[in-house]
Amino acid sequence: MDNQWQYKVEQAVARIREFDHEAAERAQRHSDSLTKPPGSLGKLEAIACQLAGISGQLWPDMSRKTVIVMAGDHGVCEEGVSAFPPEVTPQMVLNFLSGGAAVNVLARQAGADVICVDVGVNAELEHPQLVSRKVVRGTANMAKQPAMSREQALQAIAVGIELVDEQVAAGVRVFATGEMGIGNTTASSAIASVLTGLSPEQSVGSGTGINGEARARKIDAVKRAIALNKPDASDPVDVLAKVGGAEIAGLVGVIIGAAANGCPVVIDGFISSAAALAASRIAEQAKPYMIASHLSQEQGHQGLLEAIGLTPMIRLEMRLGEGTGAVLSFHFIDAALKLMQEMATFESAGVSKG
Amino acid sequence: MDNQWQYKVEQAVARIREFDHEAAERAQRHSDSLTKPPGSLGKLEAIACQLAGISGQLWPDMSRKTVIVMAGDHGVCEEGVSAFPPEVTPQMVLNFLSGGAAVNVLARQAGADVICVDVGVNAELEHPQLVSRKVVRGTANMAKQPAMSREQALQAIAVGIELVDEQVAAGVRVFATGEMGIGNTTASSAIASVLTGLSPEQSVGSGTGINGEARARKIDAVKRAIALNKPDASDPVDVLAKVGGAEIAGLVGVIIGAAANGCPVVIDGFISSAAALAASRIAEQAKPYMIASHLSQEQGHQGLLEAIGLTPMIRLEMRLGEGTGAVLSFHFIDAALKLMQEMATFESAGVSKG
Repeated sequence: MDNQWQYKVEQAVARIREFDHEAAERAQRHSDSLTKPPGSLGKLEAIACQLAGISGQLWPDMSRKTVIVMAGDHGVCEEGVSAFPPEVTPQMVLNFLSGGAAVNVLARQAGADVICVDVGVNAELEHPQLVSRKVVRGTANMAKQPAMSREQALQAIAVGIELVDEQVAAGVRVFATGEMGIGNTTASSAIASVLTGLSPEQSVGSGTGINGEARARKIDAVKRAIALNKPDASDPVDVLAKVGGAEIAGLVGVIIGAAANGCPVVIDGFISSAAALAASRIAEQAKPYMIASHLSQEQGHQGLLEAIGLTPMIRLEMRLGEGTGAVLSFHFIDAALKLMQEMATFESAGVSKG
Repeated sequence: MDNQWQYKVEQAVARIREFDHEAAERAQRHSDSLTKPPGSLGKLEAIACQLAGISGQLWPDMSRKTVIVMAGDHGVCEEGVSAFPPEVTPQMVLNFLSGGAAVNVLARQAGADVICVDVGVNAELEHPQLVSRKVVRGTANMAKQPAMSREQALQAIAVGIELVDEQVAAGVRVFATGEMGIGNTTASSAIASVLTGLSPEQSVGSGTGINGEARARKIDAVKRAIALNKPDASDPVDVLAKVGGAEIAGLVGVIIGAAANGCPVVIDGFISSAAALAASRIAEQAKPYMIASHLSQEQGHQGLLEAIGLTPMIRLEMRLGEGTGAVLSFHFIDAALKLMQEMATFESAGVSKG
C-alpha cells in the first residue's frame, strides 16, 4: 500500500518543470520599459517575473484562484496545548462550508473559491460541498506515539496532489494553502524544530491564544514528541508522519501539486509554512512556485520562512490561519500582472528616462 | 493675503471631530463575537475599530475612494539631486491623466478614482481632467533661498483642504495621498530632518535611484538648505515653506481636510509621510484619521512613521510614490469592513468558544 501513495508523490515531483529563467528575464525587461524608476515596484515586479518564469508567458492568465483549506484533528490536544476544544475543528469546517469564516469573506472579496477538505477530522461530517478524503480520524497523541503511519502521511500528500490536479483541470491557475485543526500549531512547531533546528522554546508560540502554563505544556509536548518518536530530519515524510498532521501533509501535497501543474501557490502563515518547508525538502524544485504572503504573529514563523528562503509581503499581525493571509495576497498577484499589462512605457507616454 | 489661507487652514483644523472611542469599543466587541480567536485578525480588526471611531458607525460605507496625486517641481534639482530630469514631472502628470501610470492601474484594480492636481508644476499644463490649482511654478532652490513663501505654503495646504471638501460633497469617503515631483524626496528628507531630528545622512535615501556621489550631493543640499533657511521645527508651516514643496504642502491639506470631513486618509510612502508628520504637528487631532500603508525602501521612511506613531501593513520594497502603496492598502480597508459585516458569530455558527 505504501508504494501506491509514494508512487503518486514521486510522479508529481517528476512533473515539476524547471523555472523558465529566460521568460522571467523577458518580464524584467518589459518591467524596465514601464514609466517608473527601474525596480521601484519592488516585490510586485519580482512577482510578475516569477509568474512569467512559472508560466513561460509574459502575462499569464491567473484569474481563477482557489484556496484549499485542509482540516484535521490532533491527538496531542489531550496534553492541553490549545485555547479551544477539539470540537471546534468540525464546527469550523461547517462554518467554512456555509461561508461564514474569515477566509470565506476574504476569498469572496478576492474573487477566489474556497475548497474545504476533510483529510483528518475526528468526526463524521456530511455536507454537499465538503470534499471528503479522510485519511485518519484525528491523529494519535504524538507525545505518546507517532501521530500517523508513514502510509497515512503519504496518502494525505497524495490527496493534496489529486485535488490540485482536479482543480487545474477545471481551470484554476493560482492556489493558496489554508488549514483548520485545533492543535495544529503544536504539530507545526514540532515540524519546525526538527526541520530547522529551532528549539521548541523558539518554535512554539501562542497559537489561538495561550500563554504562561499552557504554553509551557505545549513546549513540553513538542519536546516529548520529538524525544519519543525521533523523527528523521533528512526524511520529511517521516517527520510529517511522526509529529505532523493529516492537514499539514495534505498541504504538502497541494504545494507539490501546484508546482507539478505549473501553478503558483501562495503560502499562508505558520502551519502552511511548516508544510512549505517540508515540501521544499521533498522537492527543492517546488520552491520557485511558492509565494510567501504574510508574516504572522506566531513566533516560529519568521524562522520557517527564512529556512525556505521566502520573504513575506504583508504584516497585519494576524494569527488565524485558514489561508486568510494568503488570500489577502491574491490582490497583489493581480496587481503585479495588471501593472505589467496596463502601464504605459517610457516610449508610449513620452516620458524621459533618467 | 496670508490671513486668507491661514484662516482656511484654522477653520479646517477646528472642524476635526474627536475620535469616537465608544464606537471603536463597540466595533471591538462585535469583532470579538466573530468566529476566530480574539484579536487574531490583527491590524484588520484595528482598522475596523478605527473606521468605527472615525465614522461613529459599526460598518460605515467606505466604498467611494480617491487618491489625490499632487504634483509640483523643485528648484533644488539644480543641485543634481535626482536620477531623472525635471521635465519628467509634467510628463508624468500627463501620464496620470491618460491612465498609464502605476497608480492609475492600481486604482482601477481597487475601484478608486485618481485626481491629479497641478499645485506647483514648472510648466503650463492643460488637460480636461487636470485640476489646475497652481500656487507656484516650481519652488526656488532651497539650497540658495527659501523654497516658497509662507503664504504659498498656506495656500497649497488650503488647496488640499478645498479639494477634499469638494470630493466629500461628491460622495468620496476614503482618501489616499499621492504625489509626483522630481526632487521631492530631497525636500521630504529636509522636512524629516527638521521635524524628527534625524541627520541628513539618515533621512536622505536613494530616491528614484541615486547612490554614491549623487547621494552625497543630495545630503549636502539638504544640509545647506537647513543651515541657510533655519526652518523653525516648532512651526510646521515655516518648515514646509522653506525646505518643502507645493505638492507636499498640498498633501498636508489633503490629510487635514480628510480629518475635518471625518474621513480616513491612507498615507503612502516617504514623501506622503513627511506631509503626514507636518499635518500631525499642525493638528495632533488629525492622527486618528491616518492609516499607514506600506514601508518603502526609502531609508528615512521608518523614522517618519515612528515619529507619527504609525505602523505600516505592507512591505513590498517599493519606492515609487504616486500613492501606489496607499492604493494597495485600499483592499485591506475593504477586507476589514467586509469581515465585520459578513463573518459568522460564535453563536450563529454554533462554534464553541475557547
